[in-house]
Amino acid sequence: MTALATPGLLALDRAAQDLLFRAARTANTFTDEPVTDAQVAAIHDLIRYGPTAYNGQPLRVLLLRSSAARARLLPHLSSSNRAKTAAAPLVAVLAADVDFHERLPELYPHRPQARDWLGDRAARAEQARLNATLQIGYLLVGVRAAGLAAGPMAGFDAAGVTREFFPDGRHETLLVMNVGHPGPDAWRARLPRLSTEDVVRTL
Amino acid sequence: MTALATPGLLALDRAAQDLLFRAARTANTFTDEPVTDAQVAAIHDLIRYGPTAYNGQPLRVLLLRSSAARARLLPHLSSSNRAKTAAAPLVAVLAADVDFHERLPELYPHRPQARDWLGDRAARAEQARLNATLQIGYLLVGVRAAGLAAGPMAGFDAAGVTREFFPDGRHETLLVMNVGHPGPDAWRARLPRLSTEDVVRTL
Repeated sequence: MTALATPGLLALDRAAQDLLFRAARTANTFTDEPVTDAQVAAIHDLIRYGPTAYNGQPLRVLLLRSSAARARLLPHLSSSNRAKTAAAPLVAVLAADVDFHERLPELYPHRPQARDWLGDRAARAEQARLNATLQIGYLLVGVRAAGLAAGPMAGFDAAGVTREFFPDGRHETLLVMNVGHPGPDAWRARLPRLSTEDVVRTL
Repeated sequence: MTALATPGLLALDRAAQDLLFRAARTANTFTDEPVTDAQVAAIHDLIRYGPTAYNGQPLRVLLLRSSAARARLLPHLSSSNRAKTAAAPLVAVLAADVDFHERLPELYPHRPQARDWLGDRAARAEQARLNATLQIGYLLVGVRAAGLAAGPMAGFDAAGVTREFFPDGRHETLLVMNVGHPGPDAWRARLPRLSTEDVVRTL
């Protein structure tokens, strides 16, 4: 890895680098060990400090713990995602609250008029999606910070999940994420990553 | 903080929690100390392991180092973001490569047909935005892991920046981020965060 050639450039120690990124993997199987509400609260208490535009914090998390709730989700997942989601200790539906701006007078108190800048729903929904997705990035790091593995899934019918779980019309589903301790054969070999030269250009 | 009532629930040690989230802040001023290409490479080498759908890694990073390049950006920023961006040691334009699927045969080799599943440009652009934004979440954590402060900015004309810097038509600009060591009065008091009860519901 390139970092071996550049020691000392990261302030984060190697154990934490491994926990959060280098050794962490997306899990496709999990043990039966539960993920408790206290763990979820500890993860949220960590990652809620991550920045969002206007401090708007649009991410909303719906935990599906009951088998009845889980059963409502499964038909909206791609067939390859159903069995592992049915068996995961915890399933989180991650959505953006498009009406996050209603709380800006409290969350962004030095500029309470920010609520009114976000009056246009389409522009606000774009901001909600962008910032809630940033927060999902923080959340995935937070799940790993708790010693757990995440299994984020793109293969699902987002509009269907939104209709099923957020009939209020103010939320947009972004991702479904399984969470737990990795089980047997939880992942395949690490897939290739792009190089810095592939990703970063300089002007 | 809630976590004080729940010791031991996070595997990540307290110093790393502080570095990445609890003590880290969005910076609005920076010192003159440069951010080197070696630091950028070390950050990317860490965060490139973060997961993306189909391992597609659509995030592209354009570093504006020359004053000529910086000058092309400033008119597209909101007036309140111009002075701090002109003075930041490093400015990164963060964009999604909508044609990320072209590399899937190499990045997702066990299912090379994934490239063809993403033939529809509009659906692919949505995936590119979602996954590149997740990667920006990882990147912000990575900037902090390098002991640096990030200053992500929402206040800019994304379409204008895309026209200016990505005339190829295959990129969409998502965020502009200043990076450096925090300068004098780099931030105001921490803004309030939503509670777990505000954000997490259970079914």
